[in-house]
Amino acid sequence: MAKLTPVELRLLAVRVLEKSNISSDNSGSIADALLAADIDGIPSHGVSRLPSYCDQALSGKVNGFANPVITFPEAGAIRVDAKSGFAYPAIDAGFDAIKNKLNESSISGITIANSHHAGVIGHHVERLANLGQVALGFSNSPAAIAPWGGHRALFGTNPIAFACPRKSGPPIVIDLSLSKIARGRIKLAAEKGEKIPLGWAVDASGKGIQNAEEALLGTLLPMGGSKGAALVLMVELLSAGLTGSNFGFEASSFFSSEGPAPNIGQFFITLNPIPFSNDMFFSRVEQICDEIKSQDGTRLPGERRFLEREKCKINKIEIPTKLINHLEQRLI
Amino acid sequence: MAKLTPVELRLLAVRVLEKSNISSDNSGSIADALLAADIDGIPSHGVSRLPSYCDQALSGKVNGFANPVITFPEAGAIRVDAKSGFAYPAIDAGFDAIKNKLNESSISGITIANSHHAGVIGHHVERLANLGQVALGFSNSPAAIAPWGGHRALFGTNPIAFACPRKSGPPIVIDLSLSKIARGRIKLAAEKGEKIPLGWAVDASGKGIQNAEEALLGTLLPMGGSKGAALVLMVELLSAGLTGSNFGFEASSFFSSEGPAPNIGQFFITLNPIPFSNDMFFSRVEQICDEIKSQDGTRLPGERRFLEREKCKINKIEIPTKLINHLEQRLI
Repeated sequence: MAKLTPVELRLLAVRVLEKSNISSDNSGSIADALLAADIDGIPSHGVSRLPSYCDQALSGKVNGFANPVITFPEAGAIRVDAKSGFAYPAIDAGFDAIKNKLNESSISGITIANSHHAGVIGHHVERLANLGQVALGFSNSPAAIAPWGGHRALFGTNPIAFACPRKSGPPIVIDLSLSKIARGRIKLAAEKGEKIPLGWAVDASGKGIQNAEEALLGTLLPMGGSKGAALVLMVELLSAGLTGSNFGFEASSFFSSEGPAPNIGQFFITLNPIPFSNDMFFSRVEQICDEIKSQDGTRLPGERRFLEREKCKINKIEIPTKLINHLEQRLI
Repeated sequence: MAKLTPVELRLLAVRVLEKSNISSDNSGSIADALLAADIDGIPSHGVSRLPSYCDQALSGKVNGFANPVITFPEAGAIRVDAKSGFAYPAIDAGFDAIKNKLNESSISGITIANSHHAGVIGHHVERLANLGQVALGFSNSPAAIAPWGGHRALFGTNPIAFACPRKSGPPIVIDLSLSKIARGRIKLAAEKGEKIPLGWAVDASGKGIQNAEEALLGTLLPMGGSKGAALVLMVELLSAGLTGSNFGFEASSFFSSEGPAPNIGQFFITLNPIPFSNDMFFSRVEQICDEIKSQDGTRLPGERRFLEREKCKINKIEIPTKLINHLEQRLI
C-alpha cells in the first residue's frame, strides 16, 4: 500500500482529472468528494473511481466541462441541472445556493437533474447537518432491482441518506443502499470463485442464485423483502421522477465509458429543526443518543466514519500501490 | 359477520365516541379515519380500535375534548400540538391549514406533537396526493424495537408512508412499518398457540424467540437488519425529535387505558412536483408505472387498497358481530 497525505492525494486526483477532459471548475469538487470517501474508510467510493470517471470524460459519455445550471422556480425549490456532467459539481452548486436561502424558508428541496454517481451520499447530507439542518438525500442509479413480483431490473440500488445535527458531537449520519447486498460484494465473490448466500440475487425466472458470476447477470434483491422493494420505488420516484431524469432502466452504467450519460437524479430535503420543534429538537436528540449509548454493543450511525476520519489526521491515507502507479501513469 | 353500509358504520362509531368523553368536534374525524381503514380492508386499524380508544378517553389518558393548536412559526413550517388528544383531529387541522399554504411554498413540513395512534398513515399522505402533492409521512410509536446491537426496546415500529399523485388513476401509496412483522401477527400466533419463525423477535439477551407468548415480552426485529434499524432511528428522530414529543421508550401503550397519554409525534412533508421537475413529473410517473405493470406478477403499491375500496361501493362492510354487539352495548 502507498501512503499519502490528504493534500498529496487531492493534488494527484486533480491533476489526473484535469488531464482527462475535465475542467478545473469541476476537478476540485470531484477530487474532494473522492478524497472524503477514502478518508472515511470507504475506498469503493474513493479515488479507486478515478480511472472509470476519467475514461467516461475522455470518451465524452460524461461532460467534464459541464457547468451546472441553477434555477429557483418557486419558494422552497432549488433545481440544478447537472447537464450530463459529474454529480459533485452540481450538488456543490445547489448546496452553495441553499446557504443563502436558509433564512427564507424552514424547509427546502433541491433536485439535481441529469446527473451521475453521487458517491457517498451521506457526505452530502452531513454538510447540511453542519449548517444546523436536518437533511434527507436520495439518489437513483442504473437498474439492478426488479419491481416486487417481477424479474426484470427497473430500479437502482437507490440509497437513502439522513443527517441529524447534534448540540454536542458530530451529526448522526445514516447512509444505506436499498439492495440487500452491494453489487461490489458479489463482484468480489465472483473474483474469488466463492458462492453467495441465497437471498442476495435472483435470475430472470426469479430463482435464487448462489453462483456469483451468474448473480452479476441477474437482479439484486432489496433489503427487507417487499417493504424494501416499496422503498426502492419511492426513491426512484423522488430521485428520477421528481427531477425529470432517467429511471434506473434507462440509465447507462456508472463504470463503463460507453453509451450516453446515465443522466440519473438526486433529491435533497433540508430543514431547520428549531421552528418545527418549538426549540426542543437539540435537547431531545441528546436524550435519545444517551439512551442508545447506554446499551452495550450499540453505536450511533456515522460513528465509524468519524473514527476513521480522526485516524486519518494522524496516519496517512493508504491506497493500493497499483492504483497510485496507474494514476501516475495517466499523467505522462 | 354483520354487514353495514359506510353511513351506518360511521353513525355507530360517532355515537360510541361521543358517549365516551369525546367531543363532537373530534368524533367525526376519528370515525372517518377508522371507517376508511375498514373500507380499505385493514380491520386492524378500523372500528376494532373503538373500544380501546373510548376506554382511553373515559379514563382521561387521552383528552377526547382536546382542541389542536396550530402555529406557523416560519415559512414552510406548520406545527400542530395535538394536546394529548387523538391524532386524527390534529392531522385534519394541520392538513386543512396546509391547503391555504400550498401556493406560498413548493415544499412544507407539518409536525404533529403530543399525539396518539395515526392509524393508517398511508391514508393521510394519500389526501395530500389528491391535492397534486408528493407526500411523505412518518410516525413513531411505543417502544418495540431495540437499537442495533442492543437488546432493550427504545423505538416504535415506526411507519413510513409515501404518496405520489398520478395523471391517470389513483395515487401510488406506500405505507409500511419498519418492524419485520407487525406485533399483531405475533399476538395472533400466541392466541393460537403457534410457534413463530426465527428472525421476528428476540429476548432480552438478543436470542431469537420462537414461542409467540415469550416474543410479546421481547423486542421485535426491524425489517432489513441493520439497515432497517437505521431507518427506525431516522423515523424516531423525524417524528418524536422534530416534534418535541415522546420517544418510543417514553410512550405509553396505544391500547391500554392506563398511565399518561402516549404523546408521540408525526411528521409530514408535502411538495408540489411541478416546479421541482420542470413540469416533467407526471409524464415520468406514467412511464415507470407502465414499465412496472408490463411485468407479470407486479402491482403498484396501494392498488390492493383501492380494489377493496371499490368493492365496498357495491358490498357492505363486514364487521364481526361480536364487535358490533359490544359497540351497541356501549350506547346503553
